Amino acid sequence: MKTYNLCLLGFGNVGRALARLLVEKSDELRGEFGVAWRVTGVASRRLGWLCAPGGYAAAELIAGKVAQRATPAPRDVREWLGAARADVLFETTPLEPLTGRPAVEHCRAGLEAGAHVVTANKGAVVHGLGELRQLAGARKRQFLFESAVADCLPVFSLFRECLPAARLLSFTALLNSTTSVIFEELERGRTFEEGVARARELGITETDPSYDVDGWDAAVKVCALANVLMGASLKLEEIERVGIRELDVRAVREAAEAGRPFRLLSRAERTADGSAKASVKPEQIAPDDPLANLAGSSLAINFKLDVLEGLTVTAREPNLRSTAYGLLADFVNAARAERRAAEQAGEREGQ
Amino acid sequence: MKTYNLCLLGFGNVGRALARLLVEKSDELRGEFGVAWRVTGVASRRLGWLCAPGGYAAAELIAGKVAQRATPAPRDVREWLGAARADVLFETTPLEPLTGRPAVEHCRAGLEAGAHVVTANKGAVVHGLGELRQLAGARKRQFLFESAVADCLPVFSLFRECLPAARLLSFTALLNSTTSVIFEELERGRTFEEGVARARELGITETDPSYDVDGWDAAVKVCALANVLMGASLKLEEIERVGIRELDVRAVREAAEAGRPFRLLSRAERTADGSAKASVKPEQIAPDDPLANLAGSSLAINFKLDVLEGLTVTAREPNLRSTAYGLLADFVNAARAERRAAEQAGEREGQ
Repeated sequence: MKTYNLCLLGFGNVGRALARLLVEKSDELRGEFGVAWRVTGVASRRLGWLCAPGGYAAAELIAGKVAQRATPAPRDVREWLGAARADVLFETTPLEPLTGRPAVEHCRAGLEAGAHVVTANKGAVVHGLGELRQLAGARKRQFLFESAVADCLPVFSLFRECLPAARLLSFTALLNSTTSVIFEELERGRTFEEGVARARELGITETDPSYDVDGWDAAVKVCALANVLMGASLKLEEIERVGIRELDVRAVREAAEAGRPFRLLSRAERTADGSAKASVKPEQIAPDDPLANLAGSSLAINFKLDVLEGLTVTAREPNLRSTAYGLLADFVNAARAERRAAEQAGEREGQ
Repeated sequence: MKTYNLCLLGFGNVGRALARLLVEKSDELRGEFGVAWRVTGVASRRLGWLCAPGGYAAAELIAGKVAQRATPAPRDVREWLGAARADVLFETTPLEPLTGRPAVEHCRAGLEAGAHVVTANKGAVVHGLGELRQLAGARKRQFLFESAVADCLPVFSLFRECLPAARLLSFTALLNSTTSVIFEELERGRTFEEGVARARELGITETDPSYDVDGWDAAVKVCALANVLMGASLKLEEIERVGIRELDVRAVREAAEAGRPFRLLSRAERTADGSAKASVKPEQIAPDDPLANLAGSSLAINFKLDVLEGLTVTAREPNLRSTAYGLLADFVNAARAERRAAEQAGEREGQ
């Protein structure tokens, strides 16, 4: 059984939920997947580059009380990954939609240090996909990002593993739960500001909620989906993006009363030239739409494939634990790939 | 590139749709997955055990005009698999819910002949799962059955590949499209018999439609899902099964008008003793239910996981091509597993 040294870069809500879930699933990971782990690095803007070469105790991780145990103390991401002897880097720093920095640099450093990289940061996917995939391939490591777009809703692994040789023609999606919650609050007679506050309470907003409200979050997600699943090479600025600030509150309420509520809808479709076009804007959802009837923070994507008119995947009421699970699933899949290779090489030697 | 000898056992609607899809996706399978194929065997009750050791031409397969080219002609499944030098057996014979025969025997023969076995026959899964999995493991072949339960809706591969270490607590599902179509026809003022005729027209009924109407089809599916996804060991006779014949037509129409239409709902949940209990019966669907608002032949499953309250997968308007795609995806996944093993062994040798 291999013991993986895990490094958590970002130790906010998601990073801490991941630590709790790792502890909770420890026995199952050992028993079912032959995977043991210890967290040897925790870093955030607030904490600095903390490292414990022997691993932090479960209680420390759950309480979020981790201290520096490395001498000398690492001064940057590379020193930190080295001191922690990282096998897996979990990148969960906040989104910076326009450049993806510093998440792209973190992921690059992780792969260059020989670690698998699992990120929940969609900025890294949109701004670093080609480079990071190539680097991962060259180092025989995994670069995985299942939780970047729709929490634990399996999307990338679904297409990679479950839908080989199916061609994705287009999709529509609800990818931003903050705006859905705001719409619901408006429909209940509350103000825009009360809606934002409600989403904050639920812990689902980006660090800067204007990224949600102005459609940046959804635009980065639709860009990542189109580029990965359709092989497009869309740039963020090519996506038509309309936020929800300008919407008339009365129109929002009337639309909901008429059974066709507004939601921030993401769309993408293949174009004749082999790329894709995409948009993020408020649109009304008809009652028979695959994306209808979804409560507040639910996420859903409806895929149109050449072999199936409509394949819809929906996550109802995802929470921090769900997002953390998306990261955990990527970790298990990286470990499985590594283990499968080792087993098969071993079998071959035994022949 | 490996050329796979494919054998189609069952050459009805699904088998022929598979042949067409294989032809259509030929270039993609070669280019993207390094997989070439030829169909060297086609068998059905009507045709007998047909074999063409050099492979049938695409035009013959598409037209469904295949002739015996082996001398001597094979007389049973084992002779047929041998003469066709089968690498993959596609089993698509009609369902026999109570015993799973002869599908189980076919699958056993395929694995014993050294072929991967891909089946759309849920009877084989329910009645042969343990034995066939063990046999596949011993022979290092794959036993896959993605299209057995919900056409091309990824379910088994979803849990296997995308949801590691997630615990399935319960699920509800619409698994039988024939009864959904019948309900819709009743709601439109038509008779039960007209409903059955409509489902027949759509090509979605079992060979014997009473298997749909009396809940056998759904019961076999829910049994397969619970046993594979929850590790249960339910027997078919342990599933509470109520068909739709006894339903009062007026009650069906009134329920639909009230926005809570009847559908044949499948349910399963874990029990304290580590197994599961399951039912198939007509139930009313509330408007905010994850399974609400699905047109006729759509299929959907709503999973409750320990890491996510509701994960719903829905296939809208699946057709024969969709079912055939489920078989094709299993074939690609079997070939990928084989190829990955070969590549990794090769890399190891090159070191």
